[in-house]
Amino acid sequence: MEPGAAGDCRPAKPGPCVSGAALEASAEPGSRMPTVAAVLPAGGCGERMGVRTPKQFCPILERPLISYTLQALERARWVKDIVVVVTAENQGAMESIIRKYRHARVSLAEAGVTRHRSIFNGLKALVGDKPGCELSKPEVVIIHDAVRPFMDEDVLLQVVLAAKEHGCSEYDLDFGTECLQLALKYCDTKAKLVEGSPDLWKVTYRRDLSAAESIIKERISQEICLVMDTKEETAHEGHVLEEVLKKELSNVKIMSGAMSHGNQDIQQFIFAQCYNYVCLNSRNADFHETQQLLKMLQDSNLSILYPVVVVSVYFLDCQAVPLSQKLESLMWIRELAKELKNRNILLSCLLICYPQDEQKLQENLKQAAIIITALIKDRNPGLVGQLLVA
Amino acid sequence: MEPGAAGDCRPAKPGPCVSGAALEASAEPGSRMPTVAAVLPAGGCGERMGVRTPKQFCPILERPLISYTLQALERARWVKDIVVVVTAENQGAMESIIRKYRHARVSLAEAGVTRHRSIFNGLKALVGDKPGCELSKPEVVIIHDAVRPFMDEDVLLQVVLAAKEHGCSEYDLDFGTECLQLALKYCDTKAKLVEGSPDLWKVTYRRDLSAAESIIKERISQEICLVMDTKEETAHEGHVLEEVLKKELSNVKIMSGAMSHGNQDIQQFIFAQCYNYVCLNSRNADFHETQQLLKMLQDSNLSILYPVVVVSVYFLDCQAVPLSQKLESLMWIRELAKELKNRNILLSCLLICYPQDEQKLQENLKQAAIIITALIKDRNPGLVGQLLVA
Repeated sequence: MEPGAAGDCRPAKPGPCVSGAALEASAEPGSRMPTVAAVLPAGGCGERMGVRTPKQFCPILERPLISYTLQALERARWVKDIVVVVTAENQGAMESIIRKYRHARVSLAEAGVTRHRSIFNGLKALVGDKPGCELSKPEVVIIHDAVRPFMDEDVLLQVVLAAKEHGCSEYDLDFGTECLQLALKYCDTKAKLVEGSPDLWKVTYRRDLSAAESIIKERISQEICLVMDTKEETAHEGHVLEEVLKKELSNVKIMSGAMSHGNQDIQQFIFAQCYNYVCLNSRNADFHETQQLLKMLQDSNLSILYPVVVVSVYFLDCQAVPLSQKLESLMWIRELAKELKNRNILLSCLLICYPQDEQKLQENLKQAAIIITALIKDRNPGLVGQLLVA
Repeated sequence: MEPGAAGDCRPAKPGPCVSGAALEASAEPGSRMPTVAAVLPAGGCGERMGVRTPKQFCPILERPLISYTLQALERARWVKDIVVVVTAENQGAMESIIRKYRHARVSLAEAGVTRHRSIFNGLKALVGDKPGCELSKPEVVIIHDAVRPFMDEDVLLQVVLAAKEHGCSEYDLDFGTECLQLALKYCDTKAKLVEGSPDLWKVTYRRDLSAAESIIKERISQEICLVMDTKEETAHEGHVLEEVLKKELSNVKIMSGAMSHGNQDIQQFIFAQCYNYVCLNSRNADFHETQQLLKMLQDSNLSILYPVVVVSVYFLDCQAVPLSQKLESLMWIRELAKELKNRNILLSCLLICYPQDEQKLQENLKQAAIIITALIKDRNPGLVGQLLVA
């Protein structure tokens, strides 16, 4: 059984094709979900990548590709056990990935000389023929490429339901590779082609790593949380900035929250995994709001999986306070930003000149929106601690 | 005949395969190069992209994809005429692309209802059945997808030589699409499969646009030109910066040139199409060197095809001159940067604090290298005019 990974796997003749809707209709309503496990063969050497690191360990935003695949599998809570099959020499690296990114339900098996032997070893680990093995025998096993990080739970579920109904052997639950051969082999048997989404593609070439990075960056840049204090003095400026951000970044969801009421607003944004914060500081207390936000972010461990962007914003009446004086007073933030970078929090400052002239103000606000977009879109750690001016 | 576009086009059974070396050996030495033209069908609507703009017109670094493909074809000087086949409604857009990016040897034909009809229309334009048509009938015609911007001259040449030797019809000189059908159809005839490079891939999905952008950004970030004056006072600092850049950016070629001797060094870099300039200003004449460089860049029109990054660098003895004072004195550059952005030149400033302490100095220089890398790698126009500090 094969999800048709559109784009990089085109059978010469289209095989049987069942849409997601048709599949769900074909599953009996209220039928029991089978116990499910997953095996991730990750013993490949990535020779087509043109890089030395095996592709499953290549970093995207400094996190290895396989961690993204594990994260996607973990999202399906009904996948009980996940076995990653790696070569002996990569065992240590894989263990530290599991620790560092706090992957749960994951155990390891050793790769064999071929992909098929590796899968077999993974299955053996699941049926528990090792003494002391705690894994329980599952009814359905998903074999999933370690280098397909973008499958969604819906497709996985279709695969599992189809497996349950059509009784494919565990061995054939293979995403993508050799799909043509499998499709042909099983054309008149019980094989079913499950429609995959275009997202279900495989990182094969070096350019695919760039594409994956762009997709991931885009996914975590869909929401910006605008943090304000609730004092009168900056409430107006905050509102103005919010309006401009909403207008200029029409594809991004702008949410605003107050730094008060026990910080419930902000806690909610963190809980909802928003990775972008624009924090408006009051004119007098230089860094109070940002400091509070940073503490909450650090306590939450939100930045374990993705870099969190924090833009600390200051509105400045440039006629009352010289810009250079303000810049000088914020220089110490550069050191703080260096420390935070080690915790995967990318802090920059943005000074917005707030002139009397309405047209000039709108220009500056628009410029601020462009700078915020650049910081969030590129997520470049090389620019942390900089004091930018709009 | 089909270059095997590795990755997105896999025949079920491998067809006949001739490597580049074998092909060149098979061509008679000293044999006359046939007259060659190219037809680019560009009438597609890009429905798989999930975007409204047809993919051949999607922007990469603000330039439409098809312009990159034309640029690659133009590099092969022996391709005499290029006919782009577009729908009537895109004719105007295509004309302005040709004007704006100064494409030569390019004319237009109108797309038909199918891809094959479009190609036919392109061929008709070449054989000159239109009154007033200046194109001369070629011996070999390359049909090339408008959305494959990364083919190189070598592969093109192989295709042409194979066409000349094996006498494939013009019609079959099609890169990539329907390759399986064509390979099967011609398996026992004169078809030849020319080995393509992995670069010869097709922009099909939205993620491919991101991948293409990354590849292009990487290609134009391979070289940095370090511009210095030859005065004693900054010669040492320039040398130190050069050493650090060479050490920290080991994958990038660092070239240095003096702003003197009629600026021959810099003219050479511009002529060699270097798109990255780090310009070291002397301590007293605030912006003199950068101004000279910018004038040369504007006169050269280098930035027509790609955005040119210019980092204007200042070394600053932070104990003698307060950082804020220097920042203040450079604020006017922000307005200049806005103007230059319209000409596709991305100007930023970088202040490097130059302390007595050797270890601290090395830290700052390393930080400078990281910032320069970030500016060149991301090439984000949203950050132009900023004054960055290392």
